[in-house]
Amino acid sequence: MTAANEAKAILNRLGLGEAVWGGTLTTRSPVDGSTAGAVRETDDVDAVVTRSAAAFDQWKRVPAPRRGELVRLLGEELRASKDDLARLVTLEAGKIVSEGLGEVQEMIDVCDFAVGLSRQLYGLTLPSERPGHHMRETWQPLGPVLVISAFNFPVAVWAWNACLALVCGDPVIWKPSEKTPLTALATHAILDRAIARFGDAPEGLSQLVIGGRETGERLAADPRIPLVSATGSTRMGKAVAQTVAARLGRSLLELGGNNAMIVTPSADLDMAVRAIAFSAVGTCGQRCTSLRRLLVHESIADALIARLKKAYETLPVGDPRESATLVGPLIDTAARSGFDAALAQAVEQGGEIAVGGDPVDRDGVYVRPAIVRMPAQTAVVEHETFAPILYVLTWSDFDEAVAMQNAVPQGLSSCVFTDSVREAEQFLSAWGSDCGIANVNIGPSGAEIGGAFGGEKDTGGGRESGSDAWKAYMRRQTQTVNFSRDLPLAQGVKFDV
Amino acid sequence: MTAANEAKAILNRLGLGEAVWGGTLTTRSPVDGSTAGAVRETDDVDAVVTRSAAAFDQWKRVPAPRRGELVRLLGEELRASKDDLARLVTLEAGKIVSEGLGEVQEMIDVCDFAVGLSRQLYGLTLPSERPGHHMRETWQPLGPVLVISAFNFPVAVWAWNACLALVCGDPVIWKPSEKTPLTALATHAILDRAIARFGDAPEGLSQLVIGGRETGERLAADPRIPLVSATGSTRMGKAVAQTVAARLGRSLLELGGNNAMIVTPSADLDMAVRAIAFSAVGTCGQRCTSLRRLLVHESIADALIARLKKAYETLPVGDPRESATLVGPLIDTAARSGFDAALAQAVEQGGEIAVGGDPVDRDGVYVRPAIVRMPAQTAVVEHETFAPILYVLTWSDFDEAVAMQNAVPQGLSSCVFTDSVREAEQFLSAWGSDCGIANVNIGPSGAEIGGAFGGEKDTGGGRESGSDAWKAYMRRQTQTVNFSRDLPLAQGVKFDV
Amino acid sequence: MTAANEAKAILNRLGLGEAVWGGTLTTRSPVDGSTAGAVRETDDVDAVVTRSAAAFDQWKRVPAPRRGELVRLLGEELRASKDDLARLVTLEAGKIVSEGLGEVQEMIDVCDFAVGLSRQLYGLTLPSERPGHHMRETWQPLGPVLVISAFNFPVAVWAWNACLALVCGDPVIWKPSEKTPLTALATHAILDRAIARFGDAPEGLSQLVIGGRETGERLAADPRIPLVSATGSTRMGKAVAQTVAARLGRSLLELGGNNAMIVTPSADLDMAVRAIAFSAVGTCGQRCTSLRRLLVHESIADALIARLKKAYETLPVGDPRESATLVGPLIDTAARSGFDAALAQAVEQGGEIAVGGDPVDRDGVYVRPAIVRMPAQTAVVEHETFAPILYVLTWSDFDEAVAMQNAVPQGLSSCVFTDSVREAEQFLSAWGSDCGIANVNIGPSGAEIGGAFGGEKDTGGGRESGSDAWKAYMRRQTQTVNFSRDLPLAQGVKFDV
Amino acid sequence: MTAANEAKAILNRLGLGEAVWGGTLTTRSPVDGSTAGAVRETDDVDAVVTRSAAAFDQWKRVPAPRRGELVRLLGEELRASKDDLARLVTLEAGKIVSEGLGEVQEMIDVCDFAVGLSRQLYGLTLPSERPGHHMRETWQPLGPVLVISAFNFPVAVWAWNACLALVCGDPVIWKPSEKTPLTALATHAILDRAIARFGDAPEGLSQLVIGGRETGERLAADPRIPLVSATGSTRMGKAVAQTVAARLGRSLLELGGNNAMIVTPSADLDMAVRAIAFSAVGTCGQRCTSLRRLLVHESIADALIARLKKAYETLPVGDPRESATLVGPLIDTAARSGFDAALAQAVEQGGEIAVGGDPVDRDGVYVRPAIVRMPAQTAVVEHETFAPILYVLTWSDFDEAVAMQNAVPQGLSSCVFTDSVREAEQFLSAWGSDCGIANVNIGPSGAEIGGAFGGEKDTGGGRESGSDAWKAYMRRQTQTVNFSRDLPLAQGVKFDV
Repeated sequence: MTAANEAKAILNRLGLGEAVWGGTLTTRSPVDGSTAGAVRETDDVDAVVTRSAAAFDQWKRVPAPRRGELVRLLGEELRASKDDLARLVTLEAGKIVSEGLGEVQEMIDVCDFAVGLSRQLYGLTLPSERPGHHMRETWQPLGPVLVISAFNFPVAVWAWNACLALVCGDPVIWKPSEKTPLTALATHAILDRAIARFGDAPEGLSQLVIGGRETGERLAADPRIPLVSATGSTRMGKAVAQTVAARLGRSLLELGGNNAMIVTPSADLDMAVRAIAFSAVGTCGQRCTSLRRLLVHESIADALIARLKKAYETLPVGDPRESATLVGPLIDTAARSGFDAALAQAVEQGGEIAVGGDPVDRDGVYVRPAIVRMPAQTAVVEHETFAPILYVLTWSDFDEAVAMQNAVPQGLSSCVFTDSVREAEQFLSAWGSDCGIANVNIGPSGAEIGGAFGGEKDTGGGRESGSDAWKAYMRRQTQTVNFSRDLPLAQGVKFDV
Repeated sequence: MTAANEAKAILNRLGLGEAVWGGTLTTRSPVDGSTAGAVRETDDVDAVVTRSAAAFDQWKRVPAPRRGELVRLLGEELRASKDDLARLVTLEAGKIVSEGLGEVQEMIDVCDFAVGLSRQLYGLTLPSERPGHHMRETWQPLGPVLVISAFNFPVAVWAWNACLALVCGDPVIWKPSEKTPLTALATHAILDRAIARFGDAPEGLSQLVIGGRETGERLAADPRIPLVSATGSTRMGKAVAQTVAARLGRSLLELGGNNAMIVTPSADLDMAVRAIAFSAVGTCGQRCTSLRRLLVHESIADALIARLKKAYETLPVGDPRESATLVGPLIDTAARSGFDAALAQAVEQGGEIAVGGDPVDRDGVYVRPAIVRMPAQTAVVEHETFAPILYVLTWSDFDEAVAMQNAVPQGLSSCVFTDSVREAEQFLSAWGSDCGIANVNIGPSGAEIGGAFGGEKDTGGGRESGSDAWKAYMRRQTQTVNFSRDLPLAQGVKFDV
Repeated sequence: MTAANEAKAILNRLGLGEAVWGGTLTTRSPVDGSTAGAVRETDDVDAVVTRSAAAFDQWKRVPAPRRGELVRLLGEELRASKDDLARLVTLEAGKIVSEGLGEVQEMIDVCDFAVGLSRQLYGLTLPSERPGHHMRETWQPLGPVLVISAFNFPVAVWAWNACLALVCGDPVIWKPSEKTPLTALATHAILDRAIARFGDAPEGLSQLVIGGRETGERLAADPRIPLVSATGSTRMGKAVAQTVAARLGRSLLELGGNNAMIVTPSADLDMAVRAIAFSAVGTCGQRCTSLRRLLVHESIADALIARLKKAYETLPVGDPRESATLVGPLIDTAARSGFDAALAQAVEQGGEIAVGGDPVDRDGVYVRPAIVRMPAQTAVVEHETFAPILYVLTWSDFDEAVAMQNAVPQGLSSCVFTDSVREAEQFLSAWGSDCGIANVNIGPSGAEIGGAFGGEKDTGGGRESGSDAWKAYMRRQTQTVNFSRDLPLAQGVKFDV
Repeated sequence: MTAANEAKAILNRLGLGEAVWGGTLTTRSPVDGSTAGAVRETDDVDAVVTRSAAAFDQWKRVPAPRRGELVRLLGEELRASKDDLARLVTLEAGKIVSEGLGEVQEMIDVCDFAVGLSRQLYGLTLPSERPGHHMRETWQPLGPVLVISAFNFPVAVWAWNACLALVCGDPVIWKPSEKTPLTALATHAILDRAIARFGDAPEGLSQLVIGGRETGERLAADPRIPLVSATGSTRMGKAVAQTVAARLGRSLLELGGNNAMIVTPSADLDMAVRAIAFSAVGTCGQRCTSLRRLLVHESIADALIARLKKAYETLPVGDPRESATLVGPLIDTAARSGFDAALAQAVEQGGEIAVGGDPVDRDGVYVRPAIVRMPAQTAVVEHETFAPILYVLTWSDFDEAVAMQNAVPQGLSSCVFTDSVREAEQFLSAWGSDCGIANVNIGPSGAEIGGAFGGEKDTGGGRESGSDAWKAYMRRQTQTVNFSRDLPLAQGVKFDV
């Protein structure tokens, strides 16, 4: 069975019949290049926003713990459909089986976390400087939230945003990547089951918008949407940020990464090799947290590269549905062009390909992950190429290594492999890594949902998932109540009419 | 002595001699229209940013409690120069004496608060889902902070930003309003005293940039400045927001307000009258939190307006240096034009001037505060006119009153006068006021520094001063440390090379 | 079928066969006085603690989010067995059907909340005053937790404690009331199902100890149990507190309440009457949060009492299994003796019985709830009688009402019915209610799990359930890491060897 | 001049004339054994408590930021009298100059921190599960706080408690050690200056009680004192804990420590030697955080001991007023007896004295600090001897080292010297140190005020100073406000009368 047909069968099983097909957005599986047709695009985007605004007026009045119950039911439904949805991630985004399951597990984890939040969403009570006054800071629902997601995490990123938004009292409008509409449709069908069990959710609480870039732009410009959460390239992010800023809306951006690992002489090299391989070639190098730069102490560089070459040479590249496969396809031929071009530039800029870089001859778009030794952080190294290329550079002093890590425009994820307290803590200090994520003895990729996820600089500054990321989905109100019979002014100002 | 000469004398006393004069930026006191000359504009803005970036590299390494010590010394110096600086606020911005003192007190309060923060700046430790792993979230210094401030709080707004920024590890670049360079120069001289006592602050830790709009724009576009904190009009804010968004920087915006008070039948009218008068005419209606809309229950409207008329008729308008004065001057003649134009539009849109609106014949720009009954929230009511005009509207149902309060583009401050628990708590609920500040039995104006200050919608969404407003001045890092001998992946993903 | 036989049937259904019977602890249903035999007491209490300590050594190493998974499974199992367990609560504790279901729902809610906590348990990162130092505060598992619970919440109180303890990394030892061993056995059977699904929980993670007072005392004295969480009478609490203090252990005490409602002239009397009835007669007056004192403004006292009399006269007292019943039985004949004695003392101390106080002639121990007007807060009013007696007192000034509310030894729950902002906020102020719980326009009884539950003074000071109550189940560690090459001392101390 | 006379002169300078003398409590300086007479004991302890309770009724109504102003003024006064008070600490407690200054600096630091807290004291706002309900958790003032302090931190411990208590709204009653009444009198005189400048503090806000053990016991038993904060021996702590528990009061205990350092092969031995010397002999081994146990990896034990011997042999023991002195006197002859007895027991239990242990022949009580190699953690090692004895033990496996660290009854401070991430993080993990304080590459002694200070097990479990230690000085209230027209019950319970 072609991957496309298998995907269609899963959609049918989830109750999505022929109605979703017959549009102009052709879907193609990167697994084997097969297609099952074109899905319908959303007609009336304005009506979507209107419904969302109306839903907000109801949903904000529903007690948050009750809103949490909807997310709890979503978690139950995701558990029930975990295999189907994970399979669809494999078929449409090309992830290997374990990664597909991991992505759905991440959705489930976020549901659990958000249910807990539904009785927290803590504001503050605080003392007033004025007698007979009470001060409080309360977090209120914000309004419709637009989620723009990318192909590489076709469902988890929606869950990060939607679970928090729903618990916070906000309706959700989801515009998935044009490359992955099917997983989005499936996810929404699963959500609909939860909504049906929940009983009294307002219509339009969560809506899916299938469409292209202009659809996204139009939504981003709509003043009825106070928050736009967008995942994708830095180029896209800058456009969204300006559109939203022009109407003084709020953006939550998760953009490009150019993630490095520093390896020091005291590192456990067995662990480092495994961490490098997973984070550089997992999801075929198409994670925003993929490892792209390996900064190795000069004394161990040759040994480490030798071990990596050996590992890379036997990497099982192929159909992601097969259990032995570790490296699946690139998402499309444009991605391969980018891969090829970057390698060519790297060589031009003094790089030496240590291993990989060849295409793999099969249906779909498959390549062998590459390792390139570079003489310096040249232009190509500073650029995020969404493909499995690992640039290797060396250093002699730890301060120099940290400076190299920080000397790129992006600021998402970073890591160090070391057993030295001094190196590890410096890496985590105010003068260490400048990224939003900093790991010690862990690759840059694969975050837990309990922490805030996101990065600095060209990565866009947004934070999703854990910690107090929920605050982006609410508005804060500073409240002061005077229950005295006097009217004192702050800072002792006197004004007696 | 002219106000300008008095100002000059104070500057001299603070050690600012002739060197600050001789430029092209003419300063004029709104108190009597006098001028003492033109101050020098900053020549080399690029060098300012370069120095700031260099200062950051040192300051971020200084322990935060030590950074707090500088702010503590600043508080001591402000206490010592309180009268001088407050007087200068009166002379340059036209505030009455008590308000001038209140503004400096606010700076002092923020110093105390920031000193406490210097041992907090709390991140989180949190449990990892992986055995032998520790997770932490740490807040790190961010980088140079640009503060663009407005004439109406010529020094306090800087203090809100600078005290937090300095404690957070960030250098500060201050571009004050072109209308109030003298208070800025004085403040910086006071800061310099604290820096001298502190001993080892890096050069360029805090810098003042005197200049016009283009200077501000150029700074806002500089990618070396990760945070731009701007106070001013919504128009200015939208421009800054887009400029900063284009480089994926962070904006903290405090823009226009259009603040309302709802008065219900159970309100204590004695208190309401006093609160209305202070918040509508204080600072001659030129606070961002000034009361602009009075939403009164129809049953008490006539009585309340009658009392307000009486109070307004005897309002002492005049030289703000005199202790009896409650209403000082508008900032300049452009402000009076705005005042006149708005009154004319109001009448055109069906309004009826109940009291005030006349010019006062004396040097400087003085007017009599106006109350205008409006038939509805017409265009002029939805617009923020920075002058002492109070629009009065009536309602019959509390839900209607809340809807009226929310039906303007701005979202800064709001309040209700009532003794009803149901009304008060509804006003503070998710379906109550949509503003960043919501008060009960307090006017909209005059916030304490312990709460977060700022507003929603066209007010720009920023928060300054208390609560966790300090987080805007830092970057968050999610840290995970693996101290085990295994390399488990999040979400149970398996990937064995 | 007798209540006892029905209970036995439920236990069988949950897999608890004959093995639990045949001991010396006779169980008797308050519903009809029937018994199904005597349950076995735990033989070797020392071995229980030994197992618990061993379980701790493993459980503390399990990642908290994984520990949360066990609690999530417990929530699923409780949902599946909700009706059975609720019925058992009715049969063994005599609660009406809706209250039985509510108690199990509370267990389920706590499970959801605790699952969320399992990825939080937040400590702090904070800035050090010393260069090159990092400071952190981390919360670590504490050790075995002893839970001593009372008959009136035979299962929810265990869940409050156990769900938090398990997520925090602590094993649990549960000594339920001698009056309610069957619900405890059933709950543990349900937990065992969750443990079986979980897979690898250590043996002895949660243990049930059936026994009398000496068993409780012996456990409380055991130094291997760092935390004793005890619910019951103030007398019991003082004994436990001293026993635990003698070994410098930690106590979490939830003891007696003597809860009042203040009713002011602006109160909504329809709501007040309903709130009074539920909170005074619900669970037949045997909640620790039951309403015992009604403090009414003198102007409305007669009217309110008249309405209450009317409501009380038609209260359906009887078999709690019947859906129309609102008042079930007292727990045993000792409780009735207490009820009778208190009424006699009240009359002796000047009280006048307005309604109720008679026994009801049927199997089990049933009485008609009483309202007694008292001339003052005499000795009997200051004492908590665990039965449905409501003392009514009047006041003329709100300050006086608050003083009366505070003038008893207990400090659990309190409330005011008013629509006045001034009264409500004063009640919630530093000079308002001195209780751990203070409600406005809600009776004293029926807390949500998201807030911290517990009280002050003779109520014992403990807090359970929501907010940061989890901290009682962990130990806090202040950590400082020096990653510099220097050794500076805090506070600038110099000491150079 | 004798130390006693110098102390008297300082007291005079602080305005404490002859009135404080003439009692029965003889004070003796450990510096030279001199005495300046006997101070008066407090006559009427009951009146002290009565005044404190009356002060509470006023102080709790004063806005917390205003209360903070008093503490700010105290900080100013302490800065002004720093040298005098520090000198008095040297004279009365025998600390060297730098330590005396450090102790006063710690008071000043706590003042700054508490001032910041005065606008925080954060409670929570949280969402209710019921529509039209608001939930809040507010922290309220608690009542009079009794502070029992020990001789070794004669003033800082009071400041930790008093600054927080005052800001939290609580009056303070201070019973200092009988060995250090003079520093207490001086501190109170300094506080009185701040109170005078403050203006309107209630009488009896802070009171000093000079007296012996029975005085302390009587105060601890007084039910009008909700919190007893006691620093001292474990024996004393157990007595206080039981007395307070008997009346269901709250204890905050800081008792004995038996603090260890683990030194691993990767440790920086230069730093370790310096850290060991300071923490083992500083304050002549009389800190609760003094280093008492050195747990060294067997491979480096001989080398490390050799270096320590060398350092110990040249330690300047002598008059603490002299700038070169590092080791001052023991507090009294009883302390020397304890020192001698412990050394004798150590030898009996297999120990070998590596260096020190001799008396020093001069006025006052001086000894040479001792290092004793022990074959195992025998009884004497498990006991806290308040004198400069360092027991050295060896280990071969890191798990074993951690187990040794934890195998004593006390749980205050602990540390590891290592450059291994794995060792350091394990030490800080749930299966690492069981102490309240855990340091890496820092000795056990010398905490910063920003962290919570205190320990587990026989150390008593209390936490003072930073983090949220202030919560011990307040009571928590869970508040729920119903502003709807319905009366829903939590957990969906139905009860319709």
